Amino acid sequence: MLKQFFRTKILRLYGTPAARTQESETADLAAELLIAPTALMQLTREDARVVVRYMLPRKIDKGTTFIYEGDKRHTDFMMLLLDGEVTVETIVVSRVQPITVTVLGRGSLIGELALLDGEPRHASCTATSHLRCAILKRQALEQLVTDSPAVAAKLMLAVSSRIAARLRENADKLKLYVQLTQAMEQEIGERNAA
Amino acid sequence: MLKQFFRTKILRLYGTPAARTQESETADLAAELLIAPTALMQLTREDARVVVRYMLPRKIDKGTTFIYEGDKRHTDFMMLLLDGEVTVETIVVSRVQPITVTVLGRGSLIGELALLDGEPRHASCTATSHLRCAILKRQALEQLVTDSPAVAAKLMLAVSSRIAARLRENADKLKLYVQLTQAMEQEIGERNAA
Repeated sequence: MLKQFFRTKILRLYGTPAARTQESETADLAAELLIAPTALMQLTREDARVVVRYMLPRKIDKGTTFIYEGDKRHTDFMMLLLDGEVTVETIVVSRVQPITVTVLGRGSLIGELALLDGEPRHASCTATSHLRCAILKRQALEQLVTDSPAVAAKLMLAVSSRIAARLRENADKLKLYVQLTQAMEQEIGERNAA
Repeated sequence: MLKQFFRTKILRLYGTPAARTQESETADLAAELLIAPTALMQLTREDARVVVRYMLPRKIDKGTTFIYEGDKRHTDFMMLLLDGEVTVETIVVSRVQPITVTVLGRGSLIGELALLDGEPRHASCTATSHLRCAILKRQALEQLVTDSPAVAAKLMLAVSSRIAARLRENADKLKLYVQLTQAMEQEIGERNAA
């Protein structure tokens, strides 16, 4: 169903012979971007090329929202951004316009949370330029675990270390907000006293 | 060095024959707690028992702070809490007392971020009761990847899905803070106008 959704609404599969050549360059780039330094065992270039064989190349047009916050159905893929820029937005109840959470560029992983836990998408992603990506579906990841468990283990170490980094960033932001609200509380308190 | 640190300052290894029996119960419990439902392939009970063989049982006394925020040296282990309660605290610049981030109980993973990315500990953890835990060191995890890659891959799927869940929780908290600061801003603005 997701496949259909992608094919018809959002994404175009590469198809022509010229595109296939490009697909090989895409594979090289995807492999390159998967090899990120971590504290743990790293994917070798060879490992990364194995992972890439389980990924699907995709193009997404500028302006397309390809992940919707709250979506419970299309939660079975993550993507590696090869080229282009993605805006991640979330709805805050008190606002009409969504707030921008972050802007992602080449090498970013997108949608890995829902891939891992199957929960609804927690933010919306919109292409602010034309995108080239490599998609890893849950089924393909499970196949990779079966076929090449050592590579899969190292991939998961890499993915979880990226999620860990995001969690740290978020924790830092939370701290800033705690400080900010404390300062504001004090200001409001002082005005009340005055 | 960490080993020494643990042995002398913080943790006691089980040692007596009675403790070894208990250690087997500990292993059972640890295996049980590792099998958490995820959207992805799950650790079987057998897999979990393999993981447990790479973990070390530890006891921590009530009142002991066993992870220190900002610690850059002791970042190579995570622990599975088998019994007891842990308070996770962080320092906010404007406050003298640290704020409590969360309270963790049986089945919680502690310290998995630093294990994964090697960055400094981002919060302090204190035992608010006597603890029983199973510790997985980075070296043991790497050994597990080498020895039983399929089990390691599934363990990492489980661990990253837990981190993913925490990231979601944090993102929700951040949203609440955004709303809160907006409301406070408005209140301050209205008072300024009045």
